[in-house]
Order: sequence, then structure tokens, then C-alpha cells
Amino acid sequence: MDENCPKLLPPGFTMSGVRCGLKEKGNDIGLIFSDVPATSSCVITQNKLKSPSVILTKQNVERNKISAVFVNSGCANCATKTSFQDANEVIKVLGKYLNINSKNIAIAQTGVIGKKLDTSKIVSSIPQLVKNLSYETSNFCQAILTTDKVKKEISKKIIIDDKEVILYGCAKGSGMISPSLATMLAFILTDINISKDMLSKALKYSTDKSFNLTTVDGDTSPNDLVIILANGKAKNKIIKENDKNFKIFQDALYNTCLYLAKQIAKDGEGATKLVEVYACGAPSFKCAKEVALSVAKSPLVKAALFGCDPNWGRVLSAVGCAKANFDISKVDIYFDEMKIAENGCGLNFDVSYARKILNKDEVKITIDLKSGKNYANVFTCDLSYDYIKINAEYHT
Amino acid sequence: MDENCPKLLPPGFTMSGVRCGLKEKGNDIGLIFSDVPATSSCVITQNKLKSPSVILTKQNVERNKISAVFVNSGCANCATKTSFQDANEVIKVLGKYLNINSKNIAIAQTGVIGKKLDTSKIVSSIPQLVKNLSYETSNFCQAILTTDKVKKEISKKIIIDDKEVILYGCAKGSGMISPSLATMLAFILTDINISKDMLSKALKYSTDKSFNLTTVDGDTSPNDLVIILANGKAKNKIIKENDKNFKIFQDALYNTCLYLAKQIAKDGEGATKLVEVYACGAPSFKCAKEVALSVAKSPLVKAALFGCDPNWGRVLSAVGCAKANFDISKVDIYFDEMKIAENGCGLNFDVSYARKILNKDEVKITIDLKSGKNYANVFTCDLSYDYIKINAEYHT
Repeated sequence: MDENCPKLLPPGFTMSGVRCGLKEKGNDIGLIFSDVPATSSCVITQNKLKSPSVILTKQNVERNKISAVFVNSGCANCATKTSFQDANEVIKVLGKYLNINSKNIAIAQTGVIGKKLDTSKIVSSIPQLVKNLSYETSNFCQAILTTDKVKKEISKKIIIDDKEVILYGCAKGSGMISPSLATMLAFILTDINISKDMLSKALKYSTDKSFNLTTVDGDTSPNDLVIILANGKAKNKIIKENDKNFKIFQDALYNTCLYLAKQIAKDGEGATKLVEVYACGAPSFKCAKEVALSVAKSPLVKAALFGCDPNWGRVLSAVGCAKANFDISKVDIYFDEMKIAENGCGLNFDVSYARKILNKDEVKITIDLKSGKNYANVFTCDLSYDYIKINAEYHT
Repeated sequence: MDENCPKLLPPGFTMSGVRCGLKEKGNDIGLIFSDVPATSSCVITQNKLKSPSVILTKQNVERNKISAVFVNSGCANCATKTSFQDANEVIKVLGKYLNINSKNIAIAQTGVIGKKLDTSKIVSSIPQLVKNLSYETSNFCQAILTTDKVKKEISKKIIIDDKEVILYGCAKGSGMISPSLATMLAFILTDINISKDMLSKALKYSTDKSFNLTTVDGDTSPNDLVIILANGKAKNKIIKENDKNFKIFQDALYNTCLYLAKQIAKDGEGATKLVEVYACGAPSFKCAKEVALSVAKSPLVKAALFGCDPNWGRVLSAVGCAKANFDISKVDIYFDEMKIAENGCGLNFDVSYARKILNKDEVKITIDLKSGKNYANVFTCDLSYDYIKINAEYHT
């Protein structure tokens, strides 16, 4: 992972972000532009309540190439009588300014559900938004944040057929984060030359093993979306099948998504630490995932982690709640490298050392079912006073 | 419901509670005694991790009549190498003092998981526990509490065949409360004369519609238990089939369980209010239950309720997360009697009045799916700073 490489957009992409007044402060609308129509794929929320933005985006991505992605924070534009009409108005006006068809535009929105979108504020700021397009990413990254504390972005280079290929990704997360995809916004831009089918395949693979294994509070959102644009400017021979080059790209995409997913968990509402729950020795991936998620979603476990309390009994109890078949009397539990419980029973361990482990910024809980060879890594955060504060006060 | 009737044990039952030192303060062991062996039934946790107490109790209840129920708080006696041995030692010593076989004793335990039970403290306090048996209930009720703030008990009278029949129930709850039974302790005593089969049937019915529809934090516990003892002293003609008298009893038992379940939700860890989530108009009971539980378990909804924030969009989004089939574009949402959303969209409503509704001690959220005639009521509480405080600091 080139996590520390300078943020870098692939050739042909520009971005901007400005403030139009939907949020109380800061940038609240953003734009991604590709100077050639890009092959695109997306994964949308599994919530039955779907915002017009994800429905429109899915439709446009499935039928057309994508030249622009519009995003606003401060309003989910969901569950109001004019949601569809308002989303359509925004992309139509934007299309005119960009001189492209609105069918080639994707739209992502985040904020309070049920609040009418003030399209006039957006429309009057679109000229500035278009004018500000540049290779600089930070204004866009700020525009997509709600209760997030930090921007989340990554850029990495790979080599395909001696050509340099760039992947850039940025995301927002914070609350309503649970593994039913895509409970946050993530935008991935690359100049690779790839078929739509293979792009979709790589995105699904990468999403299932990253964003879909991330949980902050177990809630999914009607709005959220992962979208990838591939403009082909790297001029590699087009990837059309599951070959070596595809695997290189898929691996890079997976790592990009994984980095963003971990950043989302780490910046979960009120989070003080990133928690990785690693379930291994499982008879199936599904079983490993169920066990890891059951622990990662338990409010009792998460509150204990906030208190740096090595209360492994709650971990074992959460393991027991998982809807999967395994023998709980074989389960071992570790905090980082320290074994805390063996065969379903507690060991004598150094409590003060365990507290030190839990006091770190990043903690790994391993659950070894000793019943197979499958594993799953789930990322989450602890549950703190600030989660309550943020969510008791967010609406008004 | 005779919620305000003086607490009253049925004839033949006595109780006691004393302190032996398992908890930092207060009574921590309790005893129920029936002077004749009672017909009994129980429902135990669905967690894969089951404490020896629930396994022993289930075995004794299935095979034998029950003369005594022992309970301790301060230690779950679960997931330690000597859990079974320690639970057995306690009931054997108790049997000697009561002059009954330990096979006629049920045992319930609650507290930290994975901590070794200090049986010597219990054994040395058993003589006092037996000596203190009386018709007074409060010492027992105190002995079963952990982080609960208040005792939960109820007594009601019904008439069967011109005979007065009494049902008495008490419970503990607080954390690890979720509808997978039996995520708390509840003890129900009655002098009705009833067959074991019909007693089990009535208990299952009542539990499914009360304790199993209660959630505090979505977590189940390895220890928890609902047990009923029926000693037959009311001398009504034995109830052996699904007749009028059975229905009177079952209804009274259901109401007893419902009252205790609501008290458990109201006294959930950190709770400031009781929240009833009523899903109606559903194509099936299962669908209604899934929808109501999805709302009742959402941390975002629960934190908004703590903040008295009429953020109905989170309710609608949680409805959309339910694993059930229905048309979300038909959904209406009410806070008490006030309609907030109709056909999946928000209405213009008086926000300050909505805040007043949410500021009450008891709030009802109605979700009308308008797709059938089935309904479910789920009881929960809000999610507050104190939940975090209690659970970040509970272990030590």
C-alpha cells in the first residue's frame, strides 16, 4: 500500500468542491470530471429505502459511460415527495454547464433523510463548481464529509503491460455504517483500460472484502454508494478476462478499498480506536464473517473496548450469538498476540498488560474457531460517549 | 393488569435474599422455596454459549418437580473450567440444608462471564439464606439485580373454577437484552393446578410475545432464564387441555410477562425512557416483528430518541433495513398519535410538538406497512451516555 504517496489523480480526471450553503459550514457540493467518458461500475445500498441518487446513478452507470460525478452533503434528498425531480434537476443543470448529457452523470448525496433539497442553492453554485475543476483533491474531499473528522483518500500506482496505471480513491463514512453495502460514499478513479464486465467484477470482489466487512453501528443508509470510473488513458491493452493483469488490478483495487474501509471504521462516529475482528479456523467464509460481525456489532463489546476493559467474556458471548454452526467449546480468543481464552474458557492472563493492548489506537481481536481453514476480517470502532452526543444532536 | 396491587406470593412459596460478598454491595444470593414440589417449566438462552446454570436448570425442570430456585448475582459462573462443578456444589449444599434432592433445585446466575465462582462465600451464607425464608419478596428481588436500578415485580389474581389463583413474577434485566430469549432472569410463581405440558405451552406463548420482543442492546447472554413454578395449592381442577380455564391462565401469565418485559426495557442500562415500537399492517407476524425489531435495535434511532430528536428519517431507514418483504413506499410513521411520514415521505409536522412527545417517559412509535393485518409490539429504551458509562466500566 502506497498510503504515504502524494495524493495523485489519474490523467484525465479533475475535481472540485465549493460551499453552496446546504451545510452549516464548509464545502458541501463536489464534482468529479473525466475529460473522456469513462467505463463505470457501482455498488449501491441494500436498504429497501433507496434514495433517488443511488437509483439514478445505478441506471446511468448500467446504461452509459460516465463523464461526471456530482455529490452533495448536508441533505440526503431521500423520502421527500420531490426527491427524484430535485435530483434530476441538479444533474440536468450540471449537464448543460459541462456540455454533456445528464445520462452520463452520476450523483451521490448524503445528509439528513426527509429534508427537502434546496436545489436553488446548488444550481446557483454550479458555475463556480465547474470553474474550479483542477487536479487538487482536498476541496472535493471536504465537500463529501458529514460528521467525519478527517478526509480519507489514497492513491497508488501499478504497472500493467509496462504502462503506469493509477488508482485514486476517496470516501466518507462515519455513521450508518454496516456491512450491507454501500453504507458510505466512495469514489474510485483510475486510468486503466478495462471492460465494463471486468471492472464490475473487480469492484464487487473488492467491496465484498472491504466496505462490506466494515461496521460502525450496524445501520445501513438509503443513500450510499461505491462508484469507480476507468477512463482508459493508461493505454494498456484492454483487460477483458480473468488474466494476470486483471489480478494485478483487482488486487490494487482491493487494497485501495480496504484502506478506505479501515479509515472509515477508524473515523466512525465517536470512535477512539480502530478495531479489527479476525475470525479464523472457520468451516466456511460465511461462518467466519458471521462470527466476526457478531463481535464487531456488539454494543457491549464496543463499550468495553472504549473503556479499555479486557472483558473477554463479552467477546465469547457475542461469538455465541453468531448465526452459524460451530463448537463454542473449542474457541480461543486473543487480544493482539495475547491469548485470553482457550477452548471456551478464560486463561489466567496479565490484566494490566491486556489493558495496555486495548489502550492502543488499533486493536486486533482474534477468534480462532479451530474448526476449519476459512477466515474473515471485519473492521469496526469502539462505542463512546461521543457516538451518543453526535447522534442525539445531529438532526437540528 | 393489577400492577398496583400489593405484592403477594401464592400460598406455599417463600423467598429470601442475603449478602454473601460476590458483589461489592447489597444482597447477592437469593432463594425461592416451594413447600410442595412444583410443576415447572423454563425457557433458556439461545446463545451458543450456555452457562452451567441454565443447562442444569433445564435438565432438572424437564425431569423432575422443582422445590427450590437458587440465584446469585455478581458472577455468571460461565466459561471457567470449574463452572459445572461449582454450580453443582452450590445446589448440593443447598439441598442438604433444605432436606431435598439437588435434582429438585433450579439455579440461575448472573454477573461477569469468565470469573471463577467463589463457592465458599455462598456455602457459608446458605444457612442464613434458608433461615430467612419468608413471604417477603424484596430481599430476593434485590439479590438478583446487577446494573438494574429498580426492582421489577408484579402480583395478580385470577379466578379459575371459583378458586382464587395467584401469579407472582419478578425479573432482572438491564444489559445484554435482546429477543432471542431468555436474556434476563424472570421467576414466576403460581399456585395454579396445571399439567406440565400446558404450563410449558402457556410459558412459551407468553415468553414469545413479551420477553422475546424486548431489546436493550441486541445482545443475548449465556445465562439467562425464565422459570415458572406451579404448586397446585389453589386446588382448582387440574388444567390439562386448551380450554377456557387454560386461556384465562395463559392470558394472565402473558400479562405478567409483558409487565416484567416492559419494566426490563424501561430499566435498560442508561435508559431514560421506555419505547414501544408497534409495527402493524404487515403481511405476516414475522414481517411485523422484523420491522419493529429493526427500528428498536437501531443505535441511530435510539440515540436520536435520547436527544428527543424527531429524526423520523432514521426510523424509515431502519424500517428499510428489516429483512422482510414489503413495499416501503406505502409506509406511514407516527410518534404517539402524530403522523410524521406518509407513503414513505415526510409530512410537514409541528417539530416542537414532536419533541414534546419524545420528551415523555414512554414513547410509542407506530410503523404502518399498510400491507396486511399482522402486528408486533417491541419494547426497548433509548441509548444514552450512561449505557456507555455503565458498559465501559462494568468489568472492574
